[in-house]
Amino acid sequence: MTIEAAACSELKEIAGYSFDEYRELVRQFHGSEAPGLLIGGFMVALALQSLDEGGFYDAISETRTCLPDAIQLLTPCTIGNGWLKIVPFGRYALTLYDKTVPSHPGVRVHVDAGKLKAWPEIYAWFFKLKAKGQEGQENLGEQIRQAGTSILGITRISVNDQFTKKVHKGKIGVCEQCGEAYPAEDGQVCLACQGNTAVYL
Amino acid sequence: MTIEAAACSELKEIAGYSFDEYRELVRQFHGSEAPGLLIGGFMVALALQSLDEGGFYDAISETRTCLPDAIQLLTPCTIGNGWLKIVPFGRYALTLYDKTVPSHPGVRVHVDAGKLKAWPEIYAWFFKLKAKGQEGQENLGEQIRQAGTSILGITRISVNDQFTKKVHKGKIGVCEQCGEAYPAEDGQVCLACQGNTAVYL
Repeated sequence: MTIEAAACSELKEIAGYSFDEYRELVRQFHGSEAPGLLIGGFMVALALQSLDEGGFYDAISETRTCLPDAIQLLTPCTIGNGWLKIVPFGRYALTLYDKTVPSHPGVRVHVDAGKLKAWPEIYAWFFKLKAKGQEGQENLGEQIRQAGTSILGITRISVNDQFTKKVHKGKIGVCEQCGEAYPAEDGQVCLACQGNTAVYL
Repeated sequence: MTIEAAACSELKEIAGYSFDEYRELVRQFHGSEAPGLLIGGFMVALALQSLDEGGFYDAISETRTCLPDAIQLLTPCTIGNGWLKIVPFGRYALTLYDKTVPSHPGVRVHVDAGKLKAWPEIYAWFFKLKAKGQEGQENLGEQIRQAGTSILGITRISVNDQFTKKVHKGKIGVCEQCGEAYPAEDGQVCLACQGNTAVYL
């Protein structure tokens, strides 16, 4: 069940950083000032602002593109520590929820497509109406800064139990084919030697 | 086809950082000094040292655990920019390959289970022979520092064409059910509204 949260506030800081400081972080980590990552900064900031301080929050990104990096830059959640998970629905939305509270309460923040019409550069970029490189990068960044959280929607949600369960790898074996360590419960040999290596090699 | 690379060198620096500097980076980004991430630093460093400078490298991690964060900290490849991909074979191994060279040449670095026996703390941790918290964290970190790249194996590989193809999302539509933007080719409504929301909500 979701409950509409209060209207988005006019947040101009991004989790303690000025927009320009955050922009620099993005450039260093992500390699470019990806517009989605600039918007993603406001998304994380809005989520954090709407949650109690001192909670232990895990994160979910509904897209693989850009947004996971905003989460990794601005929260303790990373792919490698398992606190950030990607559920690839292809929607530009994120969820932060408290893993220590039994009902796993949290907030989901998404880009509100309806609100984008007031910002023609953002709208054109988000719906891919311009060819790559024709996007008027500077105006786009400026519109994102000005729009802030006003183009976002937020709802209070609870994450279901099944999703929050930690999966433990169990015993580690040595694969008799490749000789490398692997989770023994995967089978007699590791997943790669079960014929999947061709995925990339 | 894989070719055995030269034996691992005695690398004591981690991509320009001292071990202690890298340890601090790990703590800040990942939230703890995860042993796998310390070893992961040497893995990335060994890979980088074995590749030509000036190439454009994409990364693959064969596990979701820890290793992706070493790659994100030490290379330009992140989950959000798409230059890091995870192929969840459950093996502690990474690949860096040049995406600009048609054959996609690169190196694959893995933890060599056979070489771990010389390092009892690392061995016990890697094969999960001690209960969590009983690991003698300090000795473990020290053994990882001393072991450096000597516990790793490296092979030259080529990544197959199919894997390296960039998948473009195509047109963006607005889902008539949830009202959010989504890749139109996913269907009449977005993947979440096709019944998958229950994955986590």
